[in-house]
Amino acid sequence: MAMNGELLRSEIREQPDAMRRLLAESEIELAAKQFAARSPRVVRFAAHGSSDAAASYGVYTFGLLAGLTAMRDSISLSVYYGAEIDFADSGVIALSQSGATPDVVRYVELARQRGALTIAITNDTTSELAAAAELVVQLAAGIERSIAATKTYLNELAALALLAATIGGTGDAMRTELRIAAELFESAIPDLESRVLRLAPDFAPVSRMYVVGRGVELATARETALKLTEVCRVAAGPLTATDLAHGPIAAVDAEFPIWAIASDDEALPAVTTAVERARAVGARLIAVGSAATTLGETPYVLATPRPREPVLCPLLSVLPGQLFAWALARAKGLDPDDPSHLTKVTVVP
Amino acid sequence: MAMNGELLRSEIREQPDAMRRLLAESEIELAAKQFAARSPRVVRFAAHGSSDAAASYGVYTFGLLAGLTAMRDSISLSVYYGAEIDFADSGVIALSQSGATPDVVRYVELARQRGALTIAITNDTTSELAAAAELVVQLAAGIERSIAATKTYLNELAALALLAATIGGTGDAMRTELRIAAELFESAIPDLESRVLRLAPDFAPVSRMYVVGRGVELATARETALKLTEVCRVAAGPLTATDLAHGPIAAVDAEFPIWAIASDDEALPAVTTAVERARAVGARLIAVGSAATTLGETPYVLATPRPREPVLCPLLSVLPGQLFAWALARAKGLDPDDPSHLTKVTVVP
Repeated sequence: MAMNGELLRSEIREQPDAMRRLLAESEIELAAKQFAARSPRVVRFAAHGSSDAAASYGVYTFGLLAGLTAMRDSISLSVYYGAEIDFADSGVIALSQSGATPDVVRYVELARQRGALTIAITNDTTSELAAAAELVVQLAAGIERSIAATKTYLNELAALALLAATIGGTGDAMRTELRIAAELFESAIPDLESRVLRLAPDFAPVSRMYVVGRGVELATARETALKLTEVCRVAAGPLTATDLAHGPIAAVDAEFPIWAIASDDEALPAVTTAVERARAVGARLIAVGSAATTLGETPYVLATPRPREPVLCPLLSVLPGQLFAWALARAKGLDPDDPSHLTKVTVVP
Repeated sequence: MAMNGELLRSEIREQPDAMRRLLAESEIELAAKQFAARSPRVVRFAAHGSSDAAASYGVYTFGLLAGLTAMRDSISLSVYYGAEIDFADSGVIALSQSGATPDVVRYVELARQRGALTIAITNDTTSELAAAAELVVQLAAGIERSIAATKTYLNELAALALLAATIGGTGDAMRTELRIAAELFESAIPDLESRVLRLAPDFAPVSRMYVVGRGVELATARETALKLTEVCRVAAGPLTATDLAHGPIAAVDAEFPIWAIASDDEALPAVTTAVERARAVGARLIAVGSAATTLGETPYVLATPRPREPVLCPLLSVLPGQLFAWALARAKGLDPDDPSHLTKVTVVP
């Protein structure tokens, strides 16, 4: 295994190619056609970890692009408690890089028995999860060897945007926008890589952080917090802009950095207000996203390109978090490719 | 205002009486009757902060006691992004102590215009939220003066259990079980108060913590983490037992306490497995809940009585978190009645 984070960095760099591979597949059209034929009234996501962060994005893509009610479902309610939930009107979308997470597999089996349309989105089409679901969308990210997920997360986002848009009748246009987003992502890597290497050493002593996003960027906040936690051993908590004001602001001081994700969309004013509150109590601000420069003065800016379709902002705003986690681990003397206590496939209940 | 946390402690102690006041009201029967008449297919919760933690509990009470699909809905999707979601088949339950949170009020207005049955559960029946909703359930908790919510949170849980059970046809039995739970809660206070005063000083230097729960206890994990964050300035992150293994375990070491909520129910094995992993990496364990003593050896045990109806465990397992937050704030030299940077009613977007 490569040392000093070369594995993680190379997979971060591979993401635009991984996304293009996904876009070359036609499984999403087939899944969307089946979905439209069955017309479920509720979309239920089942996932853990990074895939669950992607599911947060799915709630928005299905709501905005397909006008559908979507939720991150409780796996334990059906799998552990045996609740008698009616799945007949449901579309279930299970997300898992490995396709091996036991309770996600069990959830899909149960949902399918009870009449749900089940779709597995996974990087391993020979997995148990793929076998359990009626339809399979392969992530086509290529083998992901780093323990910290990067290209499978990005491809989950792209798959969810394309699936929802195709169901909503705008699949062709979305495919074009996703291709452009892959270009923008690629073009942003070199500058962001050098920026994170300059900024990360200032944060080497940090052991806790809040990551703030709202709306479509809640997914990015959750995924960024997870990267910082697993790769850098920082206790990073994801918050919506409103969560911050409902309690956590009490814990913030000058030692407590706030990672704020600001995208040019309808949720921006809420993020701006949250950032103003954090600044007022002296928090160190890291401003990220397509609207990063609107958040006011800070030496820590990691701006990302603005895609033409605002719903795709999270596909770009996750990149600074991935790169910063890689750089901060190195600044802390940790090996980004060997996070403590973790394995690639999590099989605990 | 009383000093040194007398306000918070007196409100913690008032909770059994507050719950009995709620149980003496008949509004929940009326709301359940309307609910049954309209028979919505999806229940959507809208809330922030402690009320959003209570909504996590509502997902389980509606699933287990009424066989209904329930979700913590995205407020931003409808309120900020203007997504065209169909609310005609929905029951909306908005939870807010003050009834003044602007985007929750706006969400209820939108949902009602689009045909949802709307229920406000609030401590202030003259609030904007109460005016916006079709039906109102008053929490009857009495005026809550402490910034940290306690009795309004407990009454939200009780209201959600009773409402779901009444819709499911077991309201009378649940009312009895809730009365018994209030007795159990009352009986547990004196011993837990003296325990937290003994244990809290060991944690005075702590600045971060994970709070682990699963299933019905996810609500308790979220509420306990919020109490520790707002009252003690600890960056406490709530996690499901499975979340812990999917990343955060990497950040844990001997300096990083894990607050584990173990109740005698179907999710207990998942919590036990998570605790074993945390113990293996040297984490300091605080064991809480009706099955606290099953989690193995630790000097930090805050066991709670076991209600006859396991779904009511969270009404008891929140008490150690409330009391510990009060005691830890004092051990840290903070005033539990005056958390930094917070106001009782949060009106930011």
